Amino acid sequence: MMMDEDIEQATLISYTEKPRTFPDMRSKTYSPLIIRILRNLNVRALSVLLLLSFGGIFYMGARTSPIIVFVFVVCIISFMLSVYLTKWVLAKDEGPPEMVQISDAIRDGAEGFFRTQYGTISKMAFLLAFVILCIYLFRNLTPQQEASGLGRTMSAYITVAAFLLGALCSGNAGYVGMWVSVRANVRVSSAARRSAREALQIAVRAGGFSVLVVVGMAVIGIAILYSTFYVWLDVDSPGSMKVTDLPLLLVGYGFGASFVALFAQLGGGIYTKGADVGADLVGKVEQGIPEDDPRNPAVIADLVGDNVGDCAARGADLFESIAAEIISAMILGGTMAQKCKIEDPSGFILFPLVVHSFDLVISSIGILSIKGTRNASVKSPVEDPMVVLQKGYSLTIILAVLTFGASTRWLLYTEKAPAAWLNFFMCGLVGIITAYVFVWISRYYTDYKYEPVRTLALASSTGHGTNIIAGVSLGLESTALPVLVISVAIISAFWLGNTSGLMDENGNPIGGLFGTAVATMGMLSTAAYVLTMDMFGPIADNAGGIVEMSQQPESVREITDVLDAVGNTTKATTKGFAIGSAALASFLLFSAYMDEVSAFANVSFKEVDIAIPEVFIGGLLGAMLIFLFSAWACAAVGRTAQEVVNEVRRQFIERPGIMDYKEKPDYGRCVAIVASSALREMIKPGALAIVSPIAVGFLFRILGYYSGQPLLGAKVVAAMLMFATVCGILMALFLNTAGGAWDNAKKYIETGALGGKGSDSHKAAVTGDTVGDPFKDTAGPSIHVLIKMLATITLVIAPIFL
Amino acid sequence: MMMDEDIEQATLISYTEKPRTFPDMRSKTYSPLIIRILRNLNVRALSVLLLLSFGGIFYMGARTSPIIVFVFVVCIISFMLSVYLTKWVLAKDEGPPEMVQISDAIRDGAEGFFRTQYGTISKMAFLLAFVILCIYLFRNLTPQQEASGLGRTMSAYITVAAFLLGALCSGNAGYVGMWVSVRANVRVSSAARRSAREALQIAVRAGGFSVLVVVGMAVIGIAILYSTFYVWLDVDSPGSMKVTDLPLLLVGYGFGASFVALFAQLGGGIYTKGADVGADLVGKVEQGIPEDDPRNPAVIADLVGDNVGDCAARGADLFESIAAEIISAMILGGTMAQKCKIEDPSGFILFPLVVHSFDLVISSIGILSIKGTRNASVKSPVEDPMVVLQKGYSLTIILAVLTFGASTRWLLYTEKAPAAWLNFFMCGLVGIITAYVFVWISRYYTDYKYEPVRTLALASSTGHGTNIIAGVSLGLESTALPVLVISVAIISAFWLGNTSGLMDENGNPIGGLFGTAVATMGMLSTAAYVLTMDMFGPIADNAGGIVEMSQQPESVREITDVLDAVGNTTKATTKGFAIGSAALASFLLFSAYMDEVSAFANVSFKEVDIAIPEVFIGGLLGAMLIFLFSAWACAAVGRTAQEVVNEVRRQFIERPGIMDYKEKPDYGRCVAIVASSALREMIKPGALAIVSPIAVGFLFRILGYYSGQPLLGAKVVAAMLMFATVCGILMALFLNTAGGAWDNAKKYIETGALGGKGSDSHKAAVTGDTVGDPFKDTAGPSIHVLIKMLATITLVIAPIFL
Repeated sequence: MMMDEDIEQATLISYTEKPRTFPDMRSKTYSPLIIRILRNLNVRALSVLLLLSFGGIFYMGARTSPIIVFVFVVCIISFMLSVYLTKWVLAKDEGPPEMVQISDAIRDGAEGFFRTQYGTISKMAFLLAFVILCIYLFRNLTPQQEASGLGRTMSAYITVAAFLLGALCSGNAGYVGMWVSVRANVRVSSAARRSAREALQIAVRAGGFSVLVVVGMAVIGIAILYSTFYVWLDVDSPGSMKVTDLPLLLVGYGFGASFVALFAQLGGGIYTKGADVGADLVGKVEQGIPEDDPRNPAVIADLVGDNVGDCAARGADLFESIAAEIISAMILGGTMAQKCKIEDPSGFILFPLVVHSFDLVISSIGILSIKGTRNASVKSPVEDPMVVLQKGYSLTIILAVLTFGASTRWLLYTEKAPAAWLNFFMCGLVGIITAYVFVWISRYYTDYKYEPVRTLALASSTGHGTNIIAGVSLGLESTALPVLVISVAIISAFWLGNTSGLMDENGNPIGGLFGTAVATMGMLSTAAYVLTMDMFGPIADNAGGIVEMSQQPESVREITDVLDAVGNTTKATTKGFAIGSAALASFLLFSAYMDEVSAFANVSFKEVDIAIPEVFIGGLLGAMLIFLFSAWACAAVGRTAQEVVNEVRRQFIERPGIMDYKEKPDYGRCVAIVASSALREMIKPGALAIVSPIAVGFLFRILGYYSGQPLLGAKVVAAMLMFATVCGILMALFLNTAGGAWDNAKKYIETGALGGKGSDSHKAAVTGDTVGDPFKDTAGPSIHVLIKMLATITLVIAPIFL
Repeated sequence: MMMDEDIEQATLISYTEKPRTFPDMRSKTYSPLIIRILRNLNVRALSVLLLLSFGGIFYMGARTSPIIVFVFVVCIISFMLSVYLTKWVLAKDEGPPEMVQISDAIRDGAEGFFRTQYGTISKMAFLLAFVILCIYLFRNLTPQQEASGLGRTMSAYITVAAFLLGALCSGNAGYVGMWVSVRANVRVSSAARRSAREALQIAVRAGGFSVLVVVGMAVIGIAILYSTFYVWLDVDSPGSMKVTDLPLLLVGYGFGASFVALFAQLGGGIYTKGADVGADLVGKVEQGIPEDDPRNPAVIADLVGDNVGDCAARGADLFESIAAEIISAMILGGTMAQKCKIEDPSGFILFPLVVHSFDLVISSIGILSIKGTRNASVKSPVEDPMVVLQKGYSLTIILAVLTFGASTRWLLYTEKAPAAWLNFFMCGLVGIITAYVFVWISRYYTDYKYEPVRTLALASSTGHGTNIIAGVSLGLESTALPVLVISVAIISAFWLGNTSGLMDENGNPIGGLFGTAVATMGMLSTAAYVLTMDMFGPIADNAGGIVEMSQQPESVREITDVLDAVGNTTKATTKGFAIGSAALASFLLFSAYMDEVSAFANVSFKEVDIAIPEVFIGGLLGAMLIFLFSAWACAAVGRTAQEVVNEVRRQFIERPGIMDYKEKPDYGRCVAIVASSALREMIKPGALAIVSPIAVGFLFRILGYYSGQPLLGAKVVAAMLMFATVCGILMALFLNTAGGAWDNAKKYIETGALGGKGSDSHKAAVTGDTVGDPFKDTAGPSIHVLIKMLATITLVIAPIFL
């Protein structure tokens, strides 16, 4: 009813202008509060403020450790570099007015959604902060905390403050990712009119800007928190906290980050794929018009989605990955250093911060190595952008090996075990190799140069059904190799760590777990570069959309099409990378959780025995959580897409002139429908992820109390965590790979294979692509945020299981 | 090349007869060797032989325990009943000659495939028997075995003989299932011309016949083995084996059964769904002809598939389920009785045999309660067959509660804990309720009377893509409730068992695990009736196919359509039932495995600690095994279907007269293609399932040897088993429910909803149905056989992990 009335009241404006013009949909540009405050400040006052805070930071850093000072310096340099990059990108021209108009519409849509979405997320964050505060105010203190004089109230405020700071930074990271992408997209499309190489360079540098800011923010945030706590709590002086216990105070930061990242990924993922699937189903399948055609009423919503789903969400996700991984490695380093009684444990604790500082340096070199003009000596007329990106990756990897070696020698050398640093260096190599192999496997399963996608394309020629069956089996099969690789990596890193010569008091080797942590860091030691390649994808995709909508000549579209295809592959490969690191990080956080429970309960908690029925059931519930979460995420996209399909069909019927460019489609309505649906739909799966570990842990705690099994709640939650991690890795690999493969099978057919565009094979392939959309861009990436969020939430709320 | 030549050489016979006539494809009827030998015997000699063997059996039974005699009597009575049922079914008329012709073609195809398939399976079984023999000849003996004087060679021969016997019986069970279905199908179609109720009754009684034979064979087989070993090994006399250790000798029987069932399900599942998907994709989607239309060259292959895939495979699967569950419960009963030092443990050991004997009795009553004529007092013109079946089910459940109570009081009463039997009775009630709830949940998610399938149908109206997304999310979501139910069931049964009052020497309660076993038995206490409803499905489906192909009037088709739709629902619901019982049985077998390893290694093996990296990796590999297995099973169907599609398309092009009934399609070619493809494709996933636990266990045993971790191989395999079970339950639930829901969403649209047959919604729904086919009939049911096979194989080959 409501909808019908709306339609009747809407005045249908005649739409006789040239198709390339575009309705003006601009609203006031949105800037977050913090930026608005900064803007209103006097420039001079701002500089003074900046200098003062830098001074304060450096003072704290200097009082903590020279390593922290090093980290500060590197982060600030990389912020400066990112300022340079953004100025460089913004200095590029925005192209003709029709491009600017489209780009403005996209920017408004993206900023509008971002504002509403983060408004909702921040309300939930404050609610959760309150819950955490209550938990901490009523829990008991650990013996260590009592010894250090850290009161109950103090520890509650610290955790909540860290949580809110983590959430805020994660939100900012998302904003940065979106901020640059909505500005770079139009510049890339404009540059594509001149040269492919220049377009590539702009996209890479824009991606590089946001990655440098995000990674830098994660690193400097943790460093500031660490040194603040260090100075404030007077750590390591007699009667106060030990430095090796300090990293546990940072856990709230990681949880805040993953909390925001989860909702950002869910909301953004539902938005982007709801719009995309809806637009494709009516536009491509029913009406046979090309992707991103201006006649499709859902096209602006689709382009907005690329920014809020891929750029903003990926920014938050990336921030959370780095933060979680650094914190878990710091905890493990501290625990190990304490058990080995290493004279100066700060090297082991701060090692991850240094690795990521070097990551910023070497990835910047990699990003800057991509030039805007081609090497004159190369004569080939066509250039594969993948090759260019790959060259930069190889350079970054070589530098990573060198700096990783230097960092291990610098920080992990101890006289207790003089050869230990070499073993840890080899752990790092294991990680670097694992990352490389992961990227390669993902490419093998998703690039149409190789067998699997070609077989999938062939299955499209016998119909929609065989295409889907083949895609599902491809996705399920693609889980095997990564699992084997990660198994070998964990075992060999553990073994290398154990044989490092580090022993506890009783002479047992204890370096194994830290070895795994170092391997994780090795894997993430080129994270900034890898994630720049990832960010590059949606920017190129958006640029292509703008080119298509502003009806540029065929030659320009070809350039953006090539960039888009490369972006698809890099997106798929970096997802493999993200899952691999999430698996390792969860495994580490899991150990941290067991240590935390031991500390609280003051009993040893060393094993999770799944032969106990309740614990086994915890595992069953954990695995089920993954299935249910994926179900709800996919269903949300399906429902949103159905709403879009109905709206677009309605517009085509009611405005028959749209197809002949005689009437203008109502883009705004689709944007509004998708936005409200995404906001509504992100709550259910998100709430599931947060509530279930709390509920299960609390329930089994009570059950354990009545059946006389101490620690039952904690054990059940541990099993839940492990099974959810295992199932989550597999499910995410399945969803991401299947989605990527379907997408590229369609692209392969579009190159002219098996009948090419418009053939029956192509129609079947488009069905596969639409099914793959929620798999690879909503459920898949949400799962790897989910498994880390589960690990951090259990760590933060561990007291209620006891 | 080969194919082209074949086509050229084939003489195209003119095909001008009326469409309802059918090419004669009969070959010599196939009977297995054992039946041929029996046939050639003189009737008098046969009777003497039978009497002698009965006498022998009863003598052994009497020497063992009166309980065994009871079991023998019940089984023999139910065999007699099944002879009556088969005579009753065979006495029904086969209808007009055109029906008989079609039915003959189906029977020949099914028997031909059965022969080749079981030829391959038996070769593999002998190979595996040889491997087991070698393992047992070179392994060490357990202290118990040494004490009992059971030599190494003897124990090797016993295990191998039990394995081969289990495999043979499982094969026979498959043959029985198929034998009756290829004979009953035509009789049901003939009866459908007269009355819906009579057709229903024939289908139910035919299904009942095979279920009674299969369950009876499983029960009597174990009883014979048990009493043979009892008498032969002189159990319970001083210096020989204790009766409580006897059930462990039966494990080979269970493994043999699940080995055959796995390959039967894989081969049959690939056959039936390869043909079905292929036939649908060209027939329904491309050409728009109805299902089972005689013009479709793949239609006979499709109908043959129902018999080899659903009936034969389900027979073997059912046999294996009952056998595995009985053996695992016997092992647990024995272990517990020994630990409690119960004076006469035979009640606890033989309890499962008695439960299943009663199952035979009460299910027979349930089956016979379905009358061939309607109650005259009911006036409603239309009758829902589901209601009739449901009434029988309710009757069976009521009887099950009564007999279960009687059995617990009879066998589980012990003076050590006089109230224990009551607790165990309540465990049984938990199982019965669980079964009922499982059936209800499956119905909720797959019956189009309820919300989920209607939502799925609605998603079809926006295209193929949204249909698939909605189906996948429905399937993933449907895992949640069953998991919650099974969790509650395990915990409450465990708790009831633990509070039963049974204590070990140290006064710890130890009845928990046996409580879970009793709940499993409760769940399976109406197995024969539930599985009759399952068997009923494919028979009705086949009858519908015969009616369609012989072009009977619309009214007859309507009757078979209703039966077919009910069959679909019962098939889906019994799959939920099968998964629930498989989950419980695996959990029990897992405990048996740990006991077995403890016995061999002579160290306590009580916990599986997934905080150890290697054990965690075992879990990861176990979960991955499920994904890879599903991938290969689905891909096999996809490939087979593609071959069928290409063949059918070729026939339509080369014989343009087919569509006007002027030329006859070459049905035989499709049958041959599907058969050879199914045989080829079943090897890879089957081999994966058998080789991976062996390889992983052996590898980690070596790794454990070098890293100084005893029992590492056994622990890693245990984790592998647990994670595979958890993941397998979820994956099977997902695949079965999604498949069933897609099928019924299509059927719902075919009732006229959302545009009805031929609309775009219907096309999208057909795509969903084809995707669901390999999910629900190949991969899904194979997984629940797989998880039990994994549990039995690890139990049998446990020695090589140590």
